[in-house]
Amino acid sequence: MCILPPMKEQIKVIGFDADDTLWVNEPYYRETERLFAQLMSPVADEETVMKALIDMEVRNIPLYGYGAKGFMLSMIETVLEIAGQKTRSKFIEGVLTLGKTLLAKPVVLLDDAQNALQQLKDQYRLVLVTKGDLLDQERKLRKSGLHNCFHHIEILSDKKEENYQKLLQNLSIEPEAFMMVGNSLKSDVIPALKLGAWGVYIPYHTSWVHERTDEDPGKWRQFLELESLSKLANIMGKN
Amino acid sequence: MCILPPMKEQIKVIGFDADDTLWVNEPYYRETERLFAQLMSPVADEETVMKALIDMEVRNIPLYGYGAKGFMLSMIETVLEIAGQKTRSKFIEGVLTLGKTLLAKPVVLLDDAQNALQQLKDQYRLVLVTKGDLLDQERKLRKSGLHNCFHHIEILSDKKEENYQKLLQNLSIEPEAFMMVGNSLKSDVIPALKLGAWGVYIPYHTSWVHERTDEDPGKWRQFLELESLSKLANIMGKN
Repeated sequence: MCILPPMKEQIKVIGFDADDTLWVNEPYYRETERLFAQLMSPVADEETVMKALIDMEVRNIPLYGYGAKGFMLSMIETVLEIAGQKTRSKFIEGVLTLGKTLLAKPVVLLDDAQNALQQLKDQYRLVLVTKGDLLDQERKLRKSGLHNCFHHIEILSDKKEENYQKLLQNLSIEPEAFMMVGNSLKSDVIPALKLGAWGVYIPYHTSWVHERTDEDPGKWRQFLELESLSKLANIMGKN
Repeated sequence: MCILPPMKEQIKVIGFDADDTLWVNEPYYRETERLFAQLMSPVADEETVMKALIDMEVRNIPLYGYGAKGFMLSMIETVLEIAGQKTRSKFIEGVLTLGKTLLAKPVVLLDDAQNALQQLKDQYRLVLVTKGDLLDQERKLRKSGLHNCFHHIEILSDKKEENYQKLLQNLSIEPEAFMMVGNSLKSDVIPALKLGAWGVYIPYHTSWVHERTDEDPGKWRQFLELESLSKLANIMGKN
């Protein structure tokens, strides 16, 4: 699949997912989960802890949404579920420390994010599209040094077709003028494709169970799978 | 102070704060705080609990931002601070119940919000401007029945001058074409006035300590204090 010049000219806005597309995120959550399982090891084995936590997170998503604070609350509820009265409060103290450490993690850019965005930013309007917590994402964007590349941040409460539909309305553009780039087929790529926009999938080695999909994006003409952001810059850039 | 016709024509977008401007919010937080103090009464008197909680919230704002999840985490940390090892886990269970109840509260519109917005929505672009959690605010907007009046929701990580500056950029409008309406001088009105936009203050009986300001908005020509949303509709509406 290659992008023909007239299509390249159609695209006005490129939306980038943030976590695990521009910078490392999921590995920090995975690490925090491992540390949580370690913390809880006096009362339950790793498998039991992980299962209880993931079930709790999925159950809480409608209420808490995505992000570190909801994750902290789910860990606390998991403690209440699996630990006895005596040990709970020590574990909860541990969870708060884990959560605050997670919130303060450094922002580590993925491969060539900086160069790739610099190449694209004058030619397209670049927008950060995320379903995380705005405060947290703004902090990451500031720390990343990429803030000058982006026009603004769009926070979506979820990344479904209707959320992208609204996004296109807010941006006042037609679907064919929008390209969405991300590491999740389910959240970033397929909903954009369904609307008639472009969807670029850049896989990342760690992805959340909740993010998997059975849908095949290959059936859409506007689908592209690339190995890195610099490949995107090569294709979409001026030369 | 009255709005002269040419100025009325200048205004293209009206931003509305949500909580305690369109619907009841702060009283629910006050009620939750009271219930939290009651919950903690076996270990500390109300004043001590309240002081510990407010200090904790203010300390946590840079990390957690605004909204119910941060509030829940601050209550949990307050429990760890003031309760002994033995009682903590019971209290934390209580906090989770209080928090989930708070998140599920009904949306009660303030006086004549529905009518007032209906009158204004065809003449101006109405935008919900909030620093709360997007998921939570979308849920409230849906429950409120006001979603058809609004063009979209703008989430700000804070409500300072620079946040409104960015908002105006996103909306692609000049300050004089923007009017911000809210119940907080500090967060809604003064930052808008400082940018040269219009600021409308509709006071609400309950306001948070953190929201008070010493600045006098009366010195700005574009300041307006009104007793209700229907007064706003009378002034800004067609007739």
